[in-house]
Amino acid sequence: MADVIVDEGRLAKFCTQVFVKLGVQEKDAEITSDVLVASDLRGIPSHGVARLMRYVDGIRNKTILSDAKVTIEKETASTGVVNGGNGLGQPAGYFGMNLAIKKAKDSGLGFVTVHNSNHYGIAGYYSMMALKDDLIGISMTNSAPLVVPTFSRDMLIGTNPISLAAPAGKERPYVLDMATSVVPRGKFEVYERQDKPVPLGWAVDEKGVPSTDTKRIIDNMAKTAGGGILPLGGSGELLSGHKGYGMSLLVDVLSGVLSGSDYGPWVKTLKKDGTKTHINVGHFFGAIKIENFIDLNKFKSTMDEMMLGLKESSKAEGEKRIYIHGEKEYEKYDEYKKNGVPLQEKVITALKKLSEEMNIKYDIEK
Amino acid sequence: MADVIVDEGRLAKFCTQVFVKLGVQEKDAEITSDVLVASDLRGIPSHGVARLMRYVDGIRNKTILSDAKVTIEKETASTGVVNGGNGLGQPAGYFGMNLAIKKAKDSGLGFVTVHNSNHYGIAGYYSMMALKDDLIGISMTNSAPLVVPTFSRDMLIGTNPISLAAPAGKERPYVLDMATSVVPRGKFEVYERQDKPVPLGWAVDEKGVPSTDTKRIIDNMAKTAGGGILPLGGSGELLSGHKGYGMSLLVDVLSGVLSGSDYGPWVKTLKKDGTKTHINVGHFFGAIKIENFIDLNKFKSTMDEMMLGLKESSKAEGEKRIYIHGEKEYEKYDEYKKNGVPLQEKVITALKKLSEEMNIKYDIEK
Repeated sequence: MADVIVDEGRLAKFCTQVFVKLGVQEKDAEITSDVLVASDLRGIPSHGVARLMRYVDGIRNKTILSDAKVTIEKETASTGVVNGGNGLGQPAGYFGMNLAIKKAKDSGLGFVTVHNSNHYGIAGYYSMMALKDDLIGISMTNSAPLVVPTFSRDMLIGTNPISLAAPAGKERPYVLDMATSVVPRGKFEVYERQDKPVPLGWAVDEKGVPSTDTKRIIDNMAKTAGGGILPLGGSGELLSGHKGYGMSLLVDVLSGVLSGSDYGPWVKTLKKDGTKTHINVGHFFGAIKIENFIDLNKFKSTMDEMMLGLKESSKAEGEKRIYIHGEKEYEKYDEYKKNGVPLQEKVITALKKLSEEMNIKYDIEK
Repeated sequence: MADVIVDEGRLAKFCTQVFVKLGVQEKDAEITSDVLVASDLRGIPSHGVARLMRYVDGIRNKTILSDAKVTIEKETASTGVVNGGNGLGQPAGYFGMNLAIKKAKDSGLGFVTVHNSNHYGIAGYYSMMALKDDLIGISMTNSAPLVVPTFSRDMLIGTNPISLAAPAGKERPYVLDMATSVVPRGKFEVYERQDKPVPLGWAVDEKGVPSTDTKRIIDNMAKTAGGGILPLGGSGELLSGHKGYGMSLLVDVLSGVLSGSDYGPWVKTLKKDGTKTHINVGHFFGAIKIENFIDLNKFKSTMDEMMLGLKESSKAEGEKRIYIHGEKEYEKYDEYKKNGVPLQEKVITALKKLSEEMNIKYDIEK
């Protein structure tokens, strides 16, 4: 099915109205919509408005609180602990990252944990917030357990993304934004729609054995019947799957254990004690003032030099281009900002349904 | 050839004498030896005393200065910039990490860059220094270009390791210490000695095409004739090699660009302008005071819970054990501390040669 092209401004406004109708404060609704639309604009539809229904469902069944208050529980000149109040992850993340940025501007460093939060969208949204102040931004979050640790057969850790954004001079900033798993869950759905086996090294079956059986993997994941996505580096230790597993734990140590949120297998609504409650996701944000270490212009010109050097180096046989992290997303952003954002037909259908249910005018198409 | 078992205390003393004879201050010589022996004790011989000759050669040909002074160039309550004076990387790293630890104890966070340094041994040595004060420790370094970025055909980035150490309660600390490449260079030498092809996904040939030809890969690397080690995730983007490439850049942004050291392809003695000079490696150290975020005992008991949960979970078919990062190394440490450290015959030969050349008593064998 062909994608439908929509106007990003009207799309954001539509999403904002959905959240407001559900009882979310207007400002928080705007932030959440901005994070979702930013993801579509950057060519990451898996984390964009396609997820709107999950948030709506979460608010409706009260695993996400619409009237949450985000508060600072503890702070020093360079550190902070934020309680997301079990509301949407985006306003909690936005608040936490802004706190880190403020502290970095004042003291040189700002590191902030957030607990009692929810899925916060793309990690890169928050790290990139630091760029406007010429800071290095860091963003991590734990997430629902979909990844199988090395030598295990169950989904016990999250896809736990890491993002770091660093400013450059003439070049676009360096923006790493990566799940610590081989691939995100959404990639399996793409292969399922195409009725294709997934590449070996993406997932294991219910016995913990590498599998390419797309349908079986997806079914197992849905039923938590064993198996799941592999960490970056794949199965076992031969291609260093234990490193991806370790990176996922690193994210959980900082976002989960240090923040006091849930961790690993318990980042879900069904908890250890059998109760069903808030998912309690944790985030970790950092901001670093470059001038505390080196002249800002020197930093930026060296970033330019490093990135240009990589891009202009000899390509592998058959390859035309070497990318810097964030470059593809900036190009999508430029394109979609100009021509409109493509949304899948099924996302459009869901939005139209919401429009009727909530009596919100559907006027997003270009 | 069988390994020779040596006494770790006498081995360290031997190495210290070597460095002192070369003009290194006794304290700095002791630190350097301790880092090298710690690596052997932890079962990472590739970064242990086997490297002694490289440091000796570096000092002899003056790419490493024996009489370097490590100085603080700039500091605030939570940040610091250290100049390693182009001396050994270990005393510079030790100094930098201690500065980060002191700042974290005083202010909650300590982040320190080091430039004008050299190869500092295992990244985990420094992150683990934070554990004695119940801090989270972070250590990164850039390194000689041996890794080929995604879609490139040349070695332009380092194996750039990342380490994070976090304390636990009854369990051993979590210690991640990983190169951001699939494997370190040393692994190729192991396959070469066994006359075996390396696994597909470890390296590319001079055209940037995946290769299993161990000898050709090693020859190409030695001659910088193209090709080299792949980033974690392997070749191209199918198994997310671009993530390992991105992690390597992340390390270089923080250790290299932010520190003002050289970066990527220039972390070597031959510089862009054709001069041969100091290698100018950069490091990045961090320390985080846990109590600024959460009760220390709560943190430790949650770490225990998380790690035990992983270890006790269902194993993949045919697997007997799920590991936590650092666990294998702690077990080697216990074994070697008790029974002595195994060194390869060729390392012993090199030490005996040094003993004669420098008139240092060879008495390290158990």
